[in-house]
Amino acid sequence: MSMLYWEDFTVGKILEFGGYEVTEEEIIEYATDFDPQPFHVDRDAAAEHYFGGIIASGWHTGAMCMRMMVDGYLRDSASMGSPGIEQLRWKEPVRPGETLHVKAEVLDRSLPKSRPQLGFVKFTHTVFNQDGKVKMTMISSGMFLRRPDGAVATEARQ
Amino acid sequence: MSMLYWEDFTVGKILEFGGYEVTEEEIIEYATDFDPQPFHVDRDAAAEHYFGGIIASGWHTGAMCMRMMVDGYLRDSASMGSPGIEQLRWKEPVRPGETLHVKAEVLDRSLPKSRPQLGFVKFTHTVFNQDGKVKMTMISSGMFLRRPDGAVATEARQ
Repeated sequence: MSMLYWEDFTVGKILEFGGYEVTEEEIIEYATDFDPQPFHVDRDAAAEHYFGGIIASGWHTGAMCMRMMVDGYLRDSASMGSPGIEQLRWKEPVRPGETLHVKAEVLDRSLPKSRPQLGFVKFTHTVFNQDGKVKMTMISSGMFLRRPDGAVATEARQ
Repeated sequence: MSMLYWEDFTVGKILEFGGYEVTEEEIIEYATDFDPQPFHVDRDAAAEHYFGGIIASGWHTGAMCMRMMVDGYLRDSASMGSPGIEQLRWKEPVRPGETLHVKAEVLDRSLPKSRPQLGFVKFTHTVFNQDGKVKMTMISSGMFLRRPDGAVATEARQ
């Protein structure tokens, strides 16, 4: 895979990737560190709870999505991080035994005037399980370096 | 601390808590699992990068915020999880050696008609370091059970 720069994230571009196997062990381990609410860490309390069993912390679901994003396209990109999230919805609980996949779509992109070497890309990421059930949706932006030759050409025009 | 129900989260209520010590070891461990981009996991690559050193994954910063939220008020509340995030901004990178604190403020709250036993509370959470520098802001909602006697009174009125 060649290096992905801002120019490569055209509006409407779709990327599909994933295959993250969710285990109870990892759900409990993550939540013990970062979100130790009973329905994430205590098997018995979770069974009695509204959710009817252990569910992943929403932050864990986001983190699993992030790992799939890195493996799916960020590792081979000129990623410069993210300024933030515009909307995130935890649609359904994520449970042990599920396998998660992601569909990413480029919604919009822009070039800040202040930093000519990079650009913003706005994505929607949808996390779904092995049955196509949507678990999480997220609209967020990433920053990517511009393709070096493109940047030179743009600077030459200014 | 007595149990916090939906009724206890009045608009304008402010909660301050935290004291999370950020270590390079934990930043690298978290990012190795969930966000293995060079500026999160590779000390040498990070030093050469725009960020000038290892920085925490944004998901890790969110997770640290979540842990402070659980310790700060959720553990003693009738929390029923969260439907999502309306806006999250990673304002400045989080670096090893910082100590994080959180200020939470109740922005709004509402009662869904479909589920009379619970209510929504919209918060803004601001994560800042030991010098008061803002690192992350988040507007999100939580679901909480209604105080049992309050729920009975409301149902009686309907």
